[in-house]
Amino acid sequence: MEELKERIRREGRNLGRGILKVDSFINHQVDPILTMAVGQELARRFEGSPVTKVVTAEISGIAPAFTTAVALGVPVVYARKSKPITMPEEVYRETAPSHTKLRVVELFISPEVLGPEDRVLVVDDFLASGQKRRALKRSDIPRVDSISSVLVH
Amino acid sequence: MEELKERIRREGRNLGRGILKVDSFINHQVDPILTMAVGQELARRFEGSPVTKVVTAEISGIAPAFTTAVALGVPVVYARKSKPITMPEEVYRETAPSHTKLRVVELFISPEVLGPEDRVLVVDDFLASGQKRRALKRSDIPRVDSISSVLVH
Repeated sequence: MEELKERIRREGRNLGRGILKVDSFINHQVDPILTMAVGQELARRFEGSPVTKVVTAEISGIAPAFTTAVALGVPVVYARKSKPITMPEEVYRETAPSHTKLRVVELFISPEVLGPEDRVLVVDDFLASGQKRRALKRSDIPRVDSISSVLVH
Repeated sequence: MEELKERIRREGRNLGRGILKVDSFINHQVDPILTMAVGQELARRFEGSPVTKVVTAEISGIAPAFTTAVALGVPVVYARKSKPITMPEEVYRETAPSHTKLRVVELFISPEVLGPEDRVLVVDDFLASGQKRRALKRSDIPRVDSISSVLVH
């Protein structure tokens, strides 16, 4: 996606240790026009796939996952990093190291929002190591033969 | 907004202690069609206001804030609950009690994304006590004579 690459070249800053600072348009301040275009592009790439839910790990994955879900016309599910009191006792739970938080984070999804009939598209931002995405794939969520993608390959 | 009220009546569950469980369409699984409509409605209510940025507190505020920003054609800024290593030393910082987390949360915004010329519309979800919204208003962000709104009045 040329528009996104150009923006990264213009505004991104390499902080070293594999960290790219893009918080002026992706993960602190978010450009909604660019993010809508990203969602349309990701949805286009999975056109024809039997996706029933988009899943992302909060927080910076939320915007591109949301816009992909808009374009696909399916719900989006946020894997939560802490278990809110509104979530039932029995949940899907996985762990993954966070690149920017320098610690292991937990990921929780309620079985109330994902079932055995679901086919999941995992969308996350492109900054991290892909560990959260892998954690979502290896989790015991039923039949996540997940079609996975990140924002930029 | 009748569509949202109807959905809350149909799917919401009162868990007591002022907590409404709406995680099937607002804050765990998110309905993108409904959320786009919410953004359009909020933007309509602030038509003509000189809003330059939408600000929200992660996490459940992100989706309605994002869609409001799409409709207004301005960037959205997430007040972060932890300070990522990509954020500079000097930041805007406030604290607010979280209703669902049962503890005080911190809110961080980088001065790189908000300046004295900005006019801010604060959008959060409607579940909590409004404390995070008030924290964002009283913070020392320059000229946040903020036009505030929540999803449902």
